Amino acid sequence: MSAAAVWSVDPRTGKPREQVGTEATAADVDRAVRAAHATREALADRAVRAAFLRTAADLLDASADEVVATADAETALGTPRLTGELARTSGQLRAFAAVVEDGAYLDVRIDLPDPAAVPPRPDLRRWKIPLGVVAVYAASNFPLAFSVPGGDTASALAAGCPVVVKAHPDHPATSELAAALLRRAAAETGLPEDVVVLVHGFDAGVELVRHPLVAAVGFTGSVRGGRALFDAAAARPVPIPFHGELGSLNPVVVTPGAVAERAEETGAGLAGSMTLGAGQFCTKPGFVLAPAGPDGDRFLAALTEGVARAGAAVLLDHRMRDAFVDGVTERAALDGVEAPVVPGAADAHAVTPGVLTVDAARLAAGEHALLLEECFGPVTVVARYADETEVTAVLGRLPGNLTATLHCADEDPAAPGLLAALTPLAGRVLVGGWPTGVAVAAAQHHGGPYPATTSTATSVGATAIERWLRPIAYQSTPQHLLPPELRDDNPLNVPRA
Amino acid sequence: MSAAAVWSVDPRTGKPREQVGTEATAADVDRAVRAAHATREALADRAVRAAFLRTAADLLDASADEVVATADAETALGTPRLTGELARTSGQLRAFAAVVEDGAYLDVRIDLPDPAAVPPRPDLRRWKIPLGVVAVYAASNFPLAFSVPGGDTASALAAGCPVVVKAHPDHPATSELAAALLRRAAAETGLPEDVVVLVHGFDAGVELVRHPLVAAVGFTGSVRGGRALFDAAAARPVPIPFHGELGSLNPVVVTPGAVAERAEETGAGLAGSMTLGAGQFCTKPGFVLAPAGPDGDRFLAALTEGVARAGAAVLLDHRMRDAFVDGVTERAALDGVEAPVVPGAADAHAVTPGVLTVDAARLAAGEHALLLEECFGPVTVVARYADETEVTAVLGRLPGNLTATLHCADEDPAAPGLLAALTPLAGRVLVGGWPTGVAVAAAQHHGGPYPATTSTATSVGATAIERWLRPIAYQSTPQHLLPPELRDDNPLNVPRA
Repeated sequence: MSAAAVWSVDPRTGKPREQVGTEATAADVDRAVRAAHATREALADRAVRAAFLRTAADLLDASADEVVATADAETALGTPRLTGELARTSGQLRAFAAVVEDGAYLDVRIDLPDPAAVPPRPDLRRWKIPLGVVAVYAASNFPLAFSVPGGDTASALAAGCPVVVKAHPDHPATSELAAALLRRAAAETGLPEDVVVLVHGFDAGVELVRHPLVAAVGFTGSVRGGRALFDAAAARPVPIPFHGELGSLNPVVVTPGAVAERAEETGAGLAGSMTLGAGQFCTKPGFVLAPAGPDGDRFLAALTEGVARAGAAVLLDHRMRDAFVDGVTERAALDGVEAPVVPGAADAHAVTPGVLTVDAARLAAGEHALLLEECFGPVTVVARYADETEVTAVLGRLPGNLTATLHCADEDPAAPGLLAALTPLAGRVLVGGWPTGVAVAAAQHHGGPYPATTSTATSVGATAIERWLRPIAYQSTPQHLLPPELRDDNPLNVPRA
Repeated sequence: MSAAAVWSVDPRTGKPREQVGTEATAADVDRAVRAAHATREALADRAVRAAFLRTAADLLDASADEVVATADAETALGTPRLTGELARTSGQLRAFAAVVEDGAYLDVRIDLPDPAAVPPRPDLRRWKIPLGVVAVYAASNFPLAFSVPGGDTASALAAGCPVVVKAHPDHPATSELAAALLRRAAAETGLPEDVVVLVHGFDAGVELVRHPLVAAVGFTGSVRGGRALFDAAAARPVPIPFHGELGSLNPVVVTPGAVAERAEETGAGLAGSMTLGAGQFCTKPGFVLAPAGPDGDRFLAALTEGVARAGAAVLLDHRMRDAFVDGVTERAALDGVEAPVVPGAADAHAVTPGVLTVDAARLAAGEHALLLEECFGPVTVVARYADETEVTAVLGRLPGNLTATLHCADEDPAAPGLLAALTPLAGRVLVGGWPTGVAVAAAQHHGGPYPATTSTATSVGATAIERWLRPIAYQSTPQHLLPPELRDDNPLNVPRA
């Protein structure tokens, strides 16, 4: 039996571009994991890892034109967006190089012995060590920043974990290109190339999560696919941590004060955020609570105007395009749902963005639960509310989210209560602004209550490295047997808590 | 149908002492969780929580005589051990009060806005918030330190999470007593008593992990029970973190250098550690790799002499006593296994400690896998090895552990390699000494690769609080809407990373 071919497809035409290798068999996955596993010792040196991550960033930047062109041909995300995403990706690799060098992430804690304590306290020195091979499942919507060279890979390598990436079928050629650059960077830094190994294929993904030498998983994708892999990770004889980002509605609450002050600006801002990248961001604001009444009408008018002006867009693949058309059709057909801008099919390949509206009282009463589920693509649902009681009731029905956004007036009396109601719903809470930008920063948190993520960890920002580490304490261990980071003289000058 | 009675039983006689309430029904569990859930806001103030934890410690100390007597009557662990455990438990409550006050655990990170960055970086402020109601499953072998007033409860309350404890059936009266003290401490600090609620019964435990308002689990117990609850936690519509400690063999490697230097001291030390508390510590050294040959013989002689001198002991309950007798009988019957001190039944209630020996070559070859499973109670298995190749082969067959211990000579050439081989196997690595003491300290780590624990977290030491928190980032949030800990003026003086 010959292995299934993997094709790069142009979503603008639905036509295959080129064959990119073949799907990995179970034996291929086993080989990939074992090859990656064998590189753990080589990855143990922090200075080498930092150099490797910087070299990878440089090589990625140097190949920007080819990488962006390939990604655009496979994803239709456009050159400007992909150029930005590449810069973000190489920036992320460099940021993790700095994190590795700094060493604070090792969370070193030292308790000197206290023979006077009851019971006597021994010498205890704790730090964090890498878990082992990390399986990374690439996202459809970020062919770079959340895929082969993305945050999961960068943070796992920074932690000292070899990576096996399961490529997303929407961008196999970009994946191969990025993997080749990462592997070249490894070789140029004196590391084995197999610190990063790429595999293709749905079945390969299932094999990967079950492989005994895989120690942890990073996943970005749908609730359906992510939950199946999460369940497989939990069902292993030895369960492993599964850090999955599965979906998010990203609610926005607009107060009467906000629309009284700046209805048009808020409506236009929302239109920009929800159509950005054809609405294919995991932080797309997909659900909005906005006041009924004239100010709210002005907000809605500005929103619909902005969305109507946004052109038709090609989604990442035809399956997503069909799912979007079906999803918005099903939602628009619900009793009481209106579509001031009708979302749906533009032609055989593209879709038109749209806005759906509904009376918040219906949702507060438990109707139309479908409207509280993410619909991937350029659509948002605006629920018009009569009073804050309705807002609270609807918020109480929301699942977990990556983000929650509050638009309020400067001294809005509703703001403290709403902020308190949004906090349990999300991992990042914004006051003003829009959630679609996710800054790579030390204080960033990209994660949130299930199904936003399957763990309490973040996939963006410096603390993303924590996912791939476990603490270990050394007790009464002579100096010469300790890792340098734990010795009294701290020769590598690692911060200590 | 009337609820099943819960009895306190004297393990020294097997006779019921007194009835202690009844098993919780599903409705009782629902009421317990909702009552605890309703106290979250009251628990939000860190200063109040610290005062509460200190008051709980004081009340526990003030009732020491009654608590210790009750615990001894139910567990047969003896007054000295239980007096020490009570001091450890109140010390732990005070240690977490200090952790809460200090605030470093909030892991505050602040990124000021950078409009010049590409893309511009917004104001981002990250800290950690409590997850919600924590379900704690009490351990059999620590009626205080890992039960109602123990580390899971203390760290969860410190984090701001209400707690519902599922009592262990081996010490229901002690559990009621401790819960009453904790609830009194809450009332005395102005908190609702339901910040801690106690339930009894196996079925109640199953209900608890499935309750939608339970947000995380702390468990200490067996692989069988723990894995069933872990699976239930993972299978929920909304999965929750499950921090379970399920079992550990705690391997010890003794080098030829160690026995050449101090065979007798090492053997006697091991005898003391493995019989301590009738071998009912989760850190009991249950498996030892010791060299064949005359020095190893001296080590074994000292071990067997010490174990033979240890008297018969009553285990925590009759089920454990029977499991121990069956477990050692099954192991002793294996081909090539000898018993220089025969472990088994002493009388209808007590057991005698013992030592089993086997040729390490058998284990290296994959025989007798049963000897690499934990046997709860006062027995250890000594595998005699001919060379380091056998040691490495056997270590490669071990499951995850809480601890791994190396006994070596001062400048032992084998030490670095063995330490490297033990590190992947455990959460705490000792050089010299014995693993049964677990210091409560900032640098402690009590956890380890599965099945030692089901997560990478610790259940002992300051960082145990991390299990009950999740990060959240506030973006572009005006000062007056931020929690004080994240404001520019930092009025509560919380440390910032």
